Amino acid sequence: MTDLAEKIIAGDHRSIARLITQVENNAPDAVETMKQIHPHTGQASIIGVTGVMGGGKSSLIFELALAYRTEGKKVGIIAIDPTSPFSGGALLGDRIRMTELSMDEGVFIRSMGTRGMMGGLTSSLYDVVEILDAAGMNVILIETVGVGQDEVDIVKIADTTLVVLVPGLGDSVQTIKAGLMEIADIFVVNKADKTGVEQTVAELESMLDLVNNQERRIPIVATSAKEKKGIQQLVVQIAEHQAYLKKSQTFEKRRRQRYEAELIEIIRKRLMDFIFDEKKLKTTVDCCIDQISKKELDPYSAADQILGKILK
Amino acid sequence: MTDLAEKIIAGDHRSIARLITQVENNAPDAVETMKQIHPHTGQASIIGVTGVMGGGKSSLIFELALAYRTEGKKVGIIAIDPTSPFSGGALLGDRIRMTELSMDEGVFIRSMGTRGMMGGLTSSLYDVVEILDAAGMNVILIETVGVGQDEVDIVKIADTTLVVLVPGLGDSVQTIKAGLMEIADIFVVNKADKTGVEQTVAELESMLDLVNNQERRIPIVATSAKEKKGIQQLVVQIAEHQAYLKKSQTFEKRRRQRYEAELIEIIRKRLMDFIFDEKKLKTTVDCCIDQISKKELDPYSAADQILGKILK
Repeated sequence: MTDLAEKIIAGDHRSIARLITQVENNAPDAVETMKQIHPHTGQASIIGVTGVMGGGKSSLIFELALAYRTEGKKVGIIAIDPTSPFSGGALLGDRIRMTELSMDEGVFIRSMGTRGMMGGLTSSLYDVVEILDAAGMNVILIETVGVGQDEVDIVKIADTTLVVLVPGLGDSVQTIKAGLMEIADIFVVNKADKTGVEQTVAELESMLDLVNNQERRIPIVATSAKEKKGIQQLVVQIAEHQAYLKKSQTFEKRRRQRYEAELIEIIRKRLMDFIFDEKKLKTTVDCCIDQISKKELDPYSAADQILGKILK
Repeated sequence: MTDLAEKIIAGDHRSIARLITQVENNAPDAVETMKQIHPHTGQASIIGVTGVMGGGKSSLIFELALAYRTEGKKVGIIAIDPTSPFSGGALLGDRIRMTELSMDEGVFIRSMGTRGMMGGLTSSLYDVVEILDAAGMNVILIETVGVGQDEVDIVKIADTTLVVLVPGLGDSVQTIKAGLMEIADIFVVNKADKTGVEQTVAELESMLDLVNNQERRIPIVATSAKEKKGIQQLVVQIAEHQAYLKKSQTFEKRRRQRYEAELIEIIRKRLMDFIFDEKKLKTTVDCCIDQISKKELDPYSAADQILGKILK
């Protein structure tokens, strides 16, 4: 085992940060370490937090992290949102609180700015989750900005997905996109100190009434990160959802989906690298050029031969 | 052999057009026909014509086509330039002349608008050249618009590349990009009826004087498509260049380069299709998900296994 893998499994923060930087930079060394840490993964609860901008997702994650720390759990936080306070792009007060949190040895915070090539989550997110999991984080909170494909793709990686809404952002329930409705394991109506929270909750409830075949009704939790209200109730609902996942065998199914998405991302990335690597391509096709020139083989059959193994 | 392949080899214009449309639309049927026609290719002279916009490339190609027709040769014309008169985007007088040319049974004209995914020549250009070659065209003239990567990539496909310049477009020789200088097999100073042609030719000559190691000095031909001057001289220079290619074994080398570029394009296209085919990717990775879940295999090693055959 590499020295780096050993230190990560021991939970060393600097080693975690170093491997994350390596995977983000496509460093060839990273692959061996990633291979070695995989058997040590699978213990963390992965919680996706998505929803509208200005919904207070970062403050909510901050309060959730504190609650899990009180239980003695180690917490990883990944912010895929350049405007998140975790990325340093926020008000001074928020930044100071985040900095204090990051001083806690039981908390590891990382922000990731890049997007995936398919417009969804960046492929290195899968790596970062594996790294934090192997490093012994009991809970991994992932904040995705609620635009585009990210909010839908978060279900590929999270065990539990929180969709965060706020009252008073127009008719908030009407504005929930169909995609968000489908990915929510728990609805969080945040900023419950604002007016209109009862109406938003009621609208969500009547929307849920319309959904048939509810094996499990999606719970709605009203929170106020500002007034620290509802956080404990949210922690309970997350635990109940995870118990439900395990009881219903959905947990294993979701994990399989995550590995499937991860493997597809790795393969896509490698193939893209290959497609743009003129030199490697030339070496690969070199075998067939003579035969094509001599009309013993045509270019399409040559491509079939070369690609045969993978595309069948 | 497919009916379509037989008709193409017999030179039937409607069948040529149909197969070109098939390859441009990625029709699955096209591949089998492309495989079957390959043994019938390799006879055509492939001439690339590139250079500045407004250089009169289309008129030059028109005159060259007429000259080759006088010799009894069959001529294919491919215009990769949406502003080309061959694409219908020109002055009425030009369009009428092009239409007359296209009525000639010994001439096949096709315009292609799309770009390749690497920013260079569209991948179906290789197919179109193969089709026209198999259909018995003795000469294939390819017009590329002189912007970006096209003008450089034309050498991947052409036996002889003409770089067309015009006098009076500022200091034309100074504005030749280094890339154009390197790809020219023959310089054509077109619109030789305009003033400044002697100066442009002289500038080119002194530029060529500076080039060392000239196994073959690049000839400069002054032409006037408008006054039909210099065309015969250009035909002679093209023939001399092709004789030189064969004598110096460069011909075989260029053909090999073309097949290499073609095969790389086919492989790239197939891999791109694969990368964006979520369903196929899921089937491909399905074999490994269980093992990854059980920690018997990590995602990176699984990717190694799946991609092993092609990326080594």
